[in-house]
Amino acid sequence: MAARGGGGGRGGPARVSNLDGDAPESTDFANYFCTYAYLYHQKDMLEDHKRTGAYYNACMQNREQFAGKVVLDVGTGSGILAIFAARAGARKVYAVEATDMAKSAKRLVAAQGLEGSIEVIQGVIESVELPEKVDIIISEWMGYFLLRESMLDSVLVARDRFLKPGGALYPSHARMVLAPIRSNQCRQRQGDFQNSMEGWAEFLGEMKRYYNVDLDCLSDDYRKEQLDYFSHTAAWTDIHPSQVVGTAAVFKTYDLHTLTLEELKAPLNASFNIRVLEDGPVDAYCGWFDTQFKGSAENPTTNEVVLSTAPDPTGATHWGQQSFFLHPPVDCAEGDVLAVEIDVVRRKDNQRLMDVKIQHRVEGKGKARTSCFHIE
Amino acid sequence: MAARGGGGGRGGPARVSNLDGDAPESTDFANYFCTYAYLYHQKDMLEDHKRTGAYYNACMQNREQFAGKVVLDVGTGSGILAIFAARAGARKVYAVEATDMAKSAKRLVAAQGLEGSIEVIQGVIESVELPEKVDIIISEWMGYFLLRESMLDSVLVARDRFLKPGGALYPSHARMVLAPIRSNQCRQRQGDFQNSMEGWAEFLGEMKRYYNVDLDCLSDDYRKEQLDYFSHTAAWTDIHPSQVVGTAAVFKTYDLHTLTLEELKAPLNASFNIRVLEDGPVDAYCGWFDTQFKGSAENPTTNEVVLSTAPDPTGATHWGQQSFFLHPPVDCAEGDVLAVEIDVVRRKDNQRLMDVKIQHRVEGKGKARTSCFHIE
Repeated sequence: MAARGGGGGRGGPARVSNLDGDAPESTDFANYFCTYAYLYHQKDMLEDHKRTGAYYNACMQNREQFAGKVVLDVGTGSGILAIFAARAGARKVYAVEATDMAKSAKRLVAAQGLEGSIEVIQGVIESVELPEKVDIIISEWMGYFLLRESMLDSVLVARDRFLKPGGALYPSHARMVLAPIRSNQCRQRQGDFQNSMEGWAEFLGEMKRYYNVDLDCLSDDYRKEQLDYFSHTAAWTDIHPSQVVGTAAVFKTYDLHTLTLEELKAPLNASFNIRVLEDGPVDAYCGWFDTQFKGSAENPTTNEVVLSTAPDPTGATHWGQQSFFLHPPVDCAEGDVLAVEIDVVRRKDNQRLMDVKIQHRVEGKGKARTSCFHIE
Repeated sequence: MAARGGGGGRGGPARVSNLDGDAPESTDFANYFCTYAYLYHQKDMLEDHKRTGAYYNACMQNREQFAGKVVLDVGTGSGILAIFAARAGARKVYAVEATDMAKSAKRLVAAQGLEGSIEVIQGVIESVELPEKVDIIISEWMGYFLLRESMLDSVLVARDRFLKPGGALYPSHARMVLAPIRSNQCRQRQGDFQNSMEGWAEFLGEMKRYYNVDLDCLSDDYRKEQLDYFSHTAAWTDIHPSQVVGTAAVFKTYDLHTLTLEELKAPLNASFNIRVLEDGPVDAYCGWFDTQFKGSAENPTTNEVVLSTAPDPTGATHWGQQSFFLHPPVDCAEGDVLAVEIDVVRRKDNQRLMDVKIQHRVEGKGKARTSCFHIE
């Protein structure tokens, strides 16, 4: 048989298509948490200095907020955020990590001489016990397009279980943004799809000639599978700001202090307008996010820090931007208004992945088009 | 956080390192079976014509053995082997498939007008029920280095549950081969490892300068993780026969009619000699397999077919060969004898993956060296 590598097709996440509802915890552990047990992957995240630097600044530029406080780090990984919190003056930091990376975190904490103030706990936040409530919860929970991985769920659980009234979340707010872009990748992907279908046609011929088996009855399914891959899967992209050809719409904001788990798990729906700023095709909608460190209403930060994953001429964060390519592109003129409705829904077969539906039309022209994607 | 793709690190199979013993069935389904639910992957296997052609010939050149017989295809996938068996004259073929690919198989069977003789059953062979015993079991169960995926287990279960006395397995025999090779990939991998460690050193400097955090306490673990990846992971290779610099040793043969599940699950240990045929370094041991279609003692095939995955100037099968690179290579002279002992053991954290230990020495020179690998 020879299945190369593991997981789903083409290195995508495993799909548990014939199991009903949520995957059991063991499957989730195998498919999700395990990645974070590799130092190689921790290094990838740590050396994303826009990411690590933003958390560093959020702590170090707000020492007044940390001084003498009790902090919880949800999903500490290597332990870096716990170390920042302790260095910023926290009296005690609980650093919770599900994977064996907890052992590395423990050593890293000790190597900085911080074992007196940081306690690394291996476990999942939903079931660990802490001896006290905390003043601050810090966590780097963001996935692609903000919501992939659904790790914010765990941060909200931590908040409801452990945060003192008036305590602060770091970050405290998040925003999701969508903008129209121009990108040659659109045509490349279309070409890759065409090549793939030509390959299938040759393959059909071979199978018929060599073995007298006619596989044409599977052609529609193959076409769907390939379209799904090339046209309906969001792509990790590193977009240059000059590729953005319209206004960027902030279509969703989250205040993590008031957001409920129910709201977060519910389908996200938003309608908004985008103004086209250049003549020519819109090849894709490009999505990114930022998070803000404002503290809580009772305990605001002194210096607000923002971690942005917007298109940047110096290059993307490790999140990149998620681009949703349109097949075919939409022809636009400067001044056109794109009326957009977006739906983001968790996948039934894997709650950590997302389906995205974008309905859009150039106002006053043509009829609305619907494009569906998933974030792998 | 942003874990790219799913599964384990670098697209490798998921590791369930903190779960004891066997992964539960749902995890196995998510991580193993799901790959086979993609037509893209079925196409990869079908268009490996050494593979598909060998099964085709095994059926079509042995019509006497199939005429009027009842056949079971274990893991039918697209249904191709069931179709070959029916075309070779089988009265009835039960085609068992665990994944949703069973639905495609059903359509493919109908499109060939064979729904009268082929019954596609979606289920796992360990729990399906058949209304009768079968004369022949056909299956394409081989993984990398023959044993990866451990799917032969299921074929033996099928044999013990459903094969009539004297019935035949297609294939009936399998052989594992190891040979010394010369390959520049050995130095490439060593270079990649060095680059990776230089990258780590730079990373340590950055983390110290930017955030005053000293990660050196994790350097040994990082080194081990990277060595594991670059030096202790078997590589898929397409070796040219001219790269083979010594005799190829058949170190294990399986007669599938008599092999027990206990023998198959037990660690494999073999000792053998390899004669070096050229002066120069031995960079790796290269492993491959072949399977033979001899039928059973009571029902031998008329024409024996062999499916070989040996190095071939026309290119590898989709299995390639698994190469176990030596760091450093072993300097040899023509006529040297390499005394080799190999152990192949199923991984505790994933029974479908393998650990391979190779102990080897040039006879009469130096002392034995041990190299450990895993097959991902």
